[in-house]
Amino acid sequence: MAAVGNSVPRKDGIGKATGHAVYADDIVMPGMLHGRTIRSTIPHGRIRSVNVVGDVPGLIVVDHHDIPGRNVVDLIEQDQPFLVERDVRHLAEPILLLAHEDREVVDAVRVEIEYEELEPLFDPERSEGILKSIDIVKGDVEAALADADFIVEGTYRTGHQEHVYIEPNVVVAMPEEDGIAVFGSVQCPFYVLKALKSLLGASAHIRVVQTETGGGFGGKEEYPSMIAGHATLLALKSGRPVKILYDRGEDMIATTKRHPSIVRHRTGVMRDGRIVAMDVDVLLDGGAYSTLSPVVLSRGCIHAAGAYRCDNTRIRGRAVATNTPPNGAFRGFGAPQTEFAVEVHIERIAEELAMDPVSLRELNALRPGDTTATGQVMGTDCSAHMVLEEAVRRTEFRAKREQYRGTNRSIGLALFFHGAGFTGSGERHLNSKARIDLTERGVRIAVGSTEIGQGTRTMHAQIVADALAIPYEDVEVAQPDTTLVADSGPTVASRTCMVVGKILEQCAMEMKDRLGGMSPADYHAKHGGFSVLRKYEPPDWIEWDDHTYRRDAYATYAWGCDVVEIEMDPDTLEVRPVKVTAVQEFGRPIHPALARGQIEGGTAQGLGYALLEHVVMRNGGMANAQLTNYIIPTTLDTPEFDIVMLENPYAGGPFGAKGLGELPIDGPAPAVVNAIRHFGVDLREIPAIPERLVACASR
Amino acid sequence: MAAVGNSVPRKDGIGKATGHAVYADDIVMPGMLHGRTIRSTIPHGRIRSVNVVGDVPGLIVVDHHDIPGRNVVDLIEQDQPFLVERDVRHLAEPILLLAHEDREVVDAVRVEIEYEELEPLFDPERSEGILKSIDIVKGDVEAALADADFIVEGTYRTGHQEHVYIEPNVVVAMPEEDGIAVFGSVQCPFYVLKALKSLLGASAHIRVVQTETGGGFGGKEEYPSMIAGHATLLALKSGRPVKILYDRGEDMIATTKRHPSIVRHRTGVMRDGRIVAMDVDVLLDGGAYSTLSPVVLSRGCIHAAGAYRCDNTRIRGRAVATNTPPNGAFRGFGAPQTEFAVEVHIERIAEELAMDPVSLRELNALRPGDTTATGQVMGTDCSAHMVLEEAVRRTEFRAKREQYRGTNRSIGLALFFHGAGFTGSGERHLNSKARIDLTERGVRIAVGSTEIGQGTRTMHAQIVADALAIPYEDVEVAQPDTTLVADSGPTVASRTCMVVGKILEQCAMEMKDRLGGMSPADYHAKHGGFSVLRKYEPPDWIEWDDHTYRRDAYATYAWGCDVVEIEMDPDTLEVRPVKVTAVQEFGRPIHPALARGQIEGGTAQGLGYALLEHVVMRNGGMANAQLTNYIIPTTLDTPEFDIVMLENPYAGGPFGAKGLGELPIDGPAPAVVNAIRHFGVDLREIPAIPERLVACASR
Repeated sequence: MAAVGNSVPRKDGIGKATGHAVYADDIVMPGMLHGRTIRSTIPHGRIRSVNVVGDVPGLIVVDHHDIPGRNVVDLIEQDQPFLVERDVRHLAEPILLLAHEDREVVDAVRVEIEYEELEPLFDPERSEGILKSIDIVKGDVEAALADADFIVEGTYRTGHQEHVYIEPNVVVAMPEEDGIAVFGSVQCPFYVLKALKSLLGASAHIRVVQTETGGGFGGKEEYPSMIAGHATLLALKSGRPVKILYDRGEDMIATTKRHPSIVRHRTGVMRDGRIVAMDVDVLLDGGAYSTLSPVVLSRGCIHAAGAYRCDNTRIRGRAVATNTPPNGAFRGFGAPQTEFAVEVHIERIAEELAMDPVSLRELNALRPGDTTATGQVMGTDCSAHMVLEEAVRRTEFRAKREQYRGTNRSIGLALFFHGAGFTGSGERHLNSKARIDLTERGVRIAVGSTEIGQGTRTMHAQIVADALAIPYEDVEVAQPDTTLVADSGPTVASRTCMVVGKILEQCAMEMKDRLGGMSPADYHAKHGGFSVLRKYEPPDWIEWDDHTYRRDAYATYAWGCDVVEIEMDPDTLEVRPVKVTAVQEFGRPIHPALARGQIEGGTAQGLGYALLEHVVMRNGGMANAQLTNYIIPTTLDTPEFDIVMLENPYAGGPFGAKGLGELPIDGPAPAVVNAIRHFGVDLREIPAIPERLVACASR
Repeated sequence: MAAVGNSVPRKDGIGKATGHAVYADDIVMPGMLHGRTIRSTIPHGRIRSVNVVGDVPGLIVVDHHDIPGRNVVDLIEQDQPFLVERDVRHLAEPILLLAHEDREVVDAVRVEIEYEELEPLFDPERSEGILKSIDIVKGDVEAALADADFIVEGTYRTGHQEHVYIEPNVVVAMPEEDGIAVFGSVQCPFYVLKALKSLLGASAHIRVVQTETGGGFGGKEEYPSMIAGHATLLALKSGRPVKILYDRGEDMIATTKRHPSIVRHRTGVMRDGRIVAMDVDVLLDGGAYSTLSPVVLSRGCIHAAGAYRCDNTRIRGRAVATNTPPNGAFRGFGAPQTEFAVEVHIERIAEELAMDPVSLRELNALRPGDTTATGQVMGTDCSAHMVLEEAVRRTEFRAKREQYRGTNRSIGLALFFHGAGFTGSGERHLNSKARIDLTERGVRIAVGSTEIGQGTRTMHAQIVADALAIPYEDVEVAQPDTTLVADSGPTVASRTCMVVGKILEQCAMEMKDRLGGMSPADYHAKHGGFSVLRKYEPPDWIEWDDHTYRRDAYATYAWGCDVVEIEMDPDTLEVRPVKVTAVQEFGRPIHPALARGQIEGGTAQGLGYALLEHVVMRNGGMANAQLTNYIIPTTLDTPEFDIVMLENPYAGGPFGAKGLGELPIDGPAPAVVNAIRHFGVDLREIPAIPERLVACASR
């Protein structure tokens, strides 16, 4: 039986169900110390003095002087220090590291820090610190706006979002005879390796091993380099294993979040509904350091015009610095923000035109042959109309919209898309590799791509099993250890199935040729083992100009249309989602149950983003850093789901698959706000908490 | 306040009391496998075939072909393989190693082994396999026997004894980037290192780390090399951490025990009680491989004439091979066996002479100026008379002996001694090193000597603190890691205080000179840290001839006299110890409470050896390998103790200390059997279980 297309048992299922799976905090080692991070208590200023109070036997103390290499987290801009030297740029910035054998002892240590405080800046619109700016130009926007029948303008805002992975950040660094080993809850072990090499110096022997990981959502893309660096410094100074585990509060206060955004639209529309000009301005609040803001802004801008064709488009983007903890990678990577804006804006255009919102979208949605904002020509893998039509048809959207008018129930929709893999020439630069090894029993997959709950191990094993025509059970997946596996690139950007899965498929095909019809076990018994290592070959037709941001931003896109039915409490204005229909096309599902899980999970996370998840900032820090008042949807908050996976196999992916991880989070927020709009509430900001609805309704 | 002589808090106390201490089985690592040892089910034969039944995904299998270096445990004779190649020489001999992520899965694997069986040999008196023979000659025994008024002959037997450390054998082997690290419950990490270097080849990068260890008693002197080798082979083959933990049954069946002995005495005595000739024959059952039998035999023979002077002495010893699991190191190292024999024999001589047993001992016990069997001249550190007199005085021995006659109560005594440190020129060859490091906070002791419950860390820290005149709290003790600490020799042979403590004292004195009156912290702040490494310098007067076994067998001896009061059930003949008075001289106690603990523990273990601990062998294997019918004394079996530590400071030890670890186990068994003899039961074998007493009483 083929593995691909069937919901085979998860490779990580038994371990997680039985408790045998080892998470980093499960690690127990003799002599292990518990690390603690001393953080700034002001958002902006200079350190005058640092003083560890009292004399604590066995306490290890590390500051920036203990760094043997460079005191910057080696990512894009190299502006963020592992430990503050003098200048504090955000609240909860790491200043000092402590470690002790007894967690209670280290937690009780008092550290006094004197600061010279400086005025903090929290408003991104007032920031002059440009982390990245992008300008995408297609056609002549000003001329087209002048010729348009109408111009519709609007400003849309989104807040922070916290990842709330079940397992907070945790790493264990262990001195080895000749170097250091780091075990941790990480999405990208090779990113951590790169950062540690810079921290320690190029000649250091370092290996990074991913432990079982309880969720990431982007929150374990770049941040683990920081905590791994801290644990490593403590381990080197003490000569002992050091574990650093953040509790939920520290994890929420100190680590990255989704970038808040302010997106302005000015759109030229003809009387018949045709969109002829789109002028979009995207502003992201990057926080104190650039981290991944340049790429988050990039993906946000590329998706900012939505799933629509428009010959005259200008998208200007800026990510700016403020004195809050840096924002960073989060599922969707800028697209949820800009697609929220464009989809609410489209709804407002329909309102202005007194036009059915479905018809407006049908008129303007991308079709094969159309070009996107970057000028990419759509092929037959463009399914905007397919998902829209199916969503409208199966929900009886138009009928329900009429039927609900004047009740406490409403219905709204959003059309959206998401590019798969790294942007433009990113995959070519990344040069990912994958390896499979022939073993005594079958085949072992050896890639750095991580299982973080989404199903990497299972899905990769399915692809390899079918490409080799061997049983799924005969494929094992190595634990990512940077000394043992091929660097298949980071586990981000909806690339793990489409890109890494494709390399693995090619590895398997090469191995199959070499086996010449023998089973792996028979071949191994006769000739011994061998490995196949291959590099990713992006489609040769991709053209991309990183300066003008023109042409083929992604090899392909996945498509979705969400229809959300809500109820609003007439007294409290609390909005409750009742049913979500999510129609999504991502080529072909390798594992239908896991794909459905991704859609359900991403949609639920999107509903939380829309309605519940409100990061309250006070003095540059998260004031509600606990799960009692930072609310995410539980099963009781999750509505009925109708998940529809339309197939449109994509030749560039393994067995027709595109990427799926991020797509589902782009749709729920605009669909919810568009449903709220149908109550007559002109809301342009999320989360749509009752306080905001009251304010909008009473305007 | 001085630390030495005071019962300061144990360095390992808080960790053990709170559960923070990490034992090897506490170690949890990602990807860790659980190892299992497949053992022979016959005592003697050849392997025809080995077959792992069925197909177990993820199972790692190792046999002797997987050994990259030499397939012998590198100890003395190098006769014992890590894994059987063809010839099985004892039951439970390791043949195959398995490992799997799931302990239940690996435990369920079936392995079929076909053997060609050979006749096993279990009777040491019929063995022609001489593992080691020793001949000590002083004077002319035959002439002296001819001239003696009486000749008293006797044969005395002792059984196996099981160590019953609380924590069974356990190790974890972990691949590191460039080698292997082994964490385990071990007495001698550098012995394990040596064995692994031979197993893997000299160029291998290996480090061995002692984890918190729940008892050893010699049982973790040589055996850990075997289990560490097994875990290492599995870790190398799988590339993953591997834990091997024996349960109590496996630990009892497979690992070493105290050598059973048969000791024959033929003693020439004059009418007045003077002993003029001693002819002693010592036979030890070594089991299938030599392990440490040569040195166990050596120490047994050197102590075989007891604490008595005799101008004409001949001691012949043999350790022979049988088809049982190898016997090995056990607290006392041969001396408990030979001192049992000589002390029961002395009691029989007193009987023959109708002489008071105390008076006979007073007449013959060693005094300064006398020579031992090896010709060593006793100095003022000889305390045989002091301990004997104090024990007799405080117990009113003579009066009680008369008073108990004819009742179900009895009293017996034994006079004994124990050499401290390695035998003869052993310490010179060993060339032990110790190191102390000046740290920011004080001093760190860095030696390979292990804390196995006896108080090493505490006692070493006391010595260093006082020698440096700094607070005890300012001395920390490094975890033994062969890459980080000095090789201070094995933690055996009552040498850890007297020998290693002495080197540490000298290190501390050198450091004190160098500090020039500054405190460690002040010095470190001003000049930075430094280390002092020193080697052991044995007393220059020691002369020893390894061929003739003549002269100075030990730098010094500790002395003891145990008086045991017992009750015997007249119907069942069960013997219950009621009170033990243990008068012991071991120089000076560094830590009185720990020293008392050593004496109480050793005495209780000696009472178990005397009365309860009966290893029943069947077909060459321990038939009662469980704690339900291999009985050791619990607190309820332990009598009232009167522990008396007489001081006779020894200049060659730190602060006057000699060794203490083994001395207390030499006395209880003969004292108990001498008390039983006073009931009129001619018992010459231990354990003194009721079945044996019935047999002797009915003779």
